Amino acid sequence: MTDQNFATALAAKIDAKTKPLGALGRIEALAAQVAQVQGTLTPQMATCRLIIFAADHGIARSGVSAFPPDVTRQMVVNFARGGAAANVFCAANDVALCVVNAGVLGGAFGLEGVLDCPVAEGTENSLDGPAMTAAQRDGALAQGRALGLADACDALAFGEMGIGNTSAATLIAHCLTGRAVADLTGRGTGLDDAGLATKRDILTAAAARCSGVTDPAEVLAEYGGFEIAMMTGAMLGAAEGRRIILVDGFIASAAALIAVRMYPAARDIMVFAHRSTEPGHNAILEALDAEPLLDLGLRLGEGTGAVLAWPLVKSAVAMLNDMASFDSAGISGRAV
Amino acid sequence: MTDQNFATALAAKIDAKTKPLGALGRIEALAAQVAQVQGTLTPQMATCRLIIFAADHGIARSGVSAFPPDVTRQMVVNFARGGAAANVFCAANDVALCVVNAGVLGGAFGLEGVLDCPVAEGTENSLDGPAMTAAQRDGALAQGRALGLADACDALAFGEMGIGNTSAATLIAHCLTGRAVADLTGRGTGLDDAGLATKRDILTAAAARCSGVTDPAEVLAEYGGFEIAMMTGAMLGAAEGRRIILVDGFIASAAALIAVRMYPAARDIMVFAHRSTEPGHNAILEALDAEPLLDLGLRLGEGTGAVLAWPLVKSAVAMLNDMASFDSAGISGRAV
Repeated sequence: MTDQNFATALAAKIDAKTKPLGALGRIEALAAQVAQVQGTLTPQMATCRLIIFAADHGIARSGVSAFPPDVTRQMVVNFARGGAAANVFCAANDVALCVVNAGVLGGAFGLEGVLDCPVAEGTENSLDGPAMTAAQRDGALAQGRALGLADACDALAFGEMGIGNTSAATLIAHCLTGRAVADLTGRGTGLDDAGLATKRDILTAAAARCSGVTDPAEVLAEYGGFEIAMMTGAMLGAAEGRRIILVDGFIASAAALIAVRMYPAARDIMVFAHRSTEPGHNAILEALDAEPLLDLGLRLGEGTGAVLAWPLVKSAVAMLNDMASFDSAGISGRAV
Repeated sequence: MTDQNFATALAAKIDAKTKPLGALGRIEALAAQVAQVQGTLTPQMATCRLIIFAADHGIARSGVSAFPPDVTRQMVVNFARGGAAANVFCAANDVALCVVNAGVLGGAFGLEGVLDCPVAEGTENSLDGPAMTAAQRDGALAQGRALGLADACDALAFGEMGIGNTSAATLIAHCLTGRAVADLTGRGTGLDDAGLATKRDILTAAAARCSGVTDPAEVLAEYGGFEIAMMTGAMLGAAEGRRIILVDGFIASAAALIAVRMYPAARDIMVFAHRSTEPGHNAILEALDAEPLLDLGLRLGEGTGAVLAWPLVKSAVAMLNDMASFDSAGISGRAV
């Protein structure tokens, strides 16, 4: 089938379902996106895995977060024990969970459910110089790509944990959207007004190091965390494998923007799960022409928003595969 | 525990979870609502049932819908066979489904999964006089109340099927919100511009019969369908039983508005699932001070939006029950 014939057949299949034309709104568009990605009128959407990439950030030492860097490591242990929001949302929504140590301070975890493949123990402080070397970046991208390609689930959700990573995402958003750092900087895990002002100053200074840099790979090395780099790679791997990914909030969307700037076709596989309250998120969503499915005032990360959107994707595909048509159900068409 | 002590303990429990304060946004508010309704810090939210109330409308004979009245009956058969959007969404989201014949043309169905308790074979045409008698209304309310009280599920979602029922809901919204019929009238299942103009004229004429009537029971008898009356009763039964209900779109919200006007405490148990594209829905949501969880451009009814919101409710309660606290997980608190 040509692309045009496929699109026509897909639209006809959705329109023949026992509902008024277009009455399922964005659920119909979601079903069509999955069908397009999988290249079939009967796509499969039964399984989903959340991969949480965790890493530490040198810039956290400059005081950009309300929480100390220790929390990254403590939260990985919390994920392994099943106590985090991501765990309970995965359990409630039948999503498998895997945690990747992409570069957490303190070395390997050696815990069940945590894949240890750290690039290093945290990045350098991007206030003073590049967060990582080109070799570290490329290693993280390759590791992520392998994970994104290898997974057998129908959909992948990506989450992150890393004290300081809203700072990294803000700097990436600044470089790739051209918007002012001050407009993009948010409270992260909950800075007060004074903390927010400090964060703005630090990020403005860090941004000044690389004024005018817009190459996505370069931006990633300058400011990105290892978790962002590995997630970017995983998105590129998923795109190669034509696998749907659920994009979480601000940090995941920064990875998505880098991935799309590197490989524009990656945009096709992305389902944007939710709108974060971090101001930088809106700028990235605009740059990606993305309208998230959910808007629930979330600002946690960990992939929590992505997991909450999974039932919508599953439901959309169920609609396409399992719903009757007017003909098959013997239902009268429009009277007028 | 006093109400105030309970509210304090509930807020403390949510704030102690391993996440920044308030970082789960509306999910936190949802968890708190369920805990308040069930009166416990460890609420249960494991099971949900969708009850679809179906009935025909006399006003459909005046040409207010794009589809013929036969479709109500045909769709009930489609529900029984598992082919409708409501069926596939229920299956995808682990929601049980039951269909109630509240007054469909053509008599009893005698089908597995369809409860036949019709008030009559459709309402009278509310353009010419009351849609139902006071006795019919009270019978429908009582039948619905029994269903809402008896159900053992942790949450109930209510849906509807009834060609012509956006007209009934529009007239109810007009009487109970005071907004002009012309502003509330929408395309329903997909009227074109001419059809919409006709519908506006017919509804304006029907509304003129009862200018100034605002008593909810009276409005229900004048314009309501049997499915709306029975759903209103079910909401009142659920409120008596302190059971969470998921309110679907425009028609379900019209029933919710009647229920709340009859018994204001019913508002507490209502979770508003989605924002319909029908213009009348916004007016009702405003009157109920309700902000729905989802905004996906749906306008199907059947409870489809309510079912899509169920995973959010389940996830919210899982957060409250199963997520670790900073203390239990040994995680550092805020640095600043």
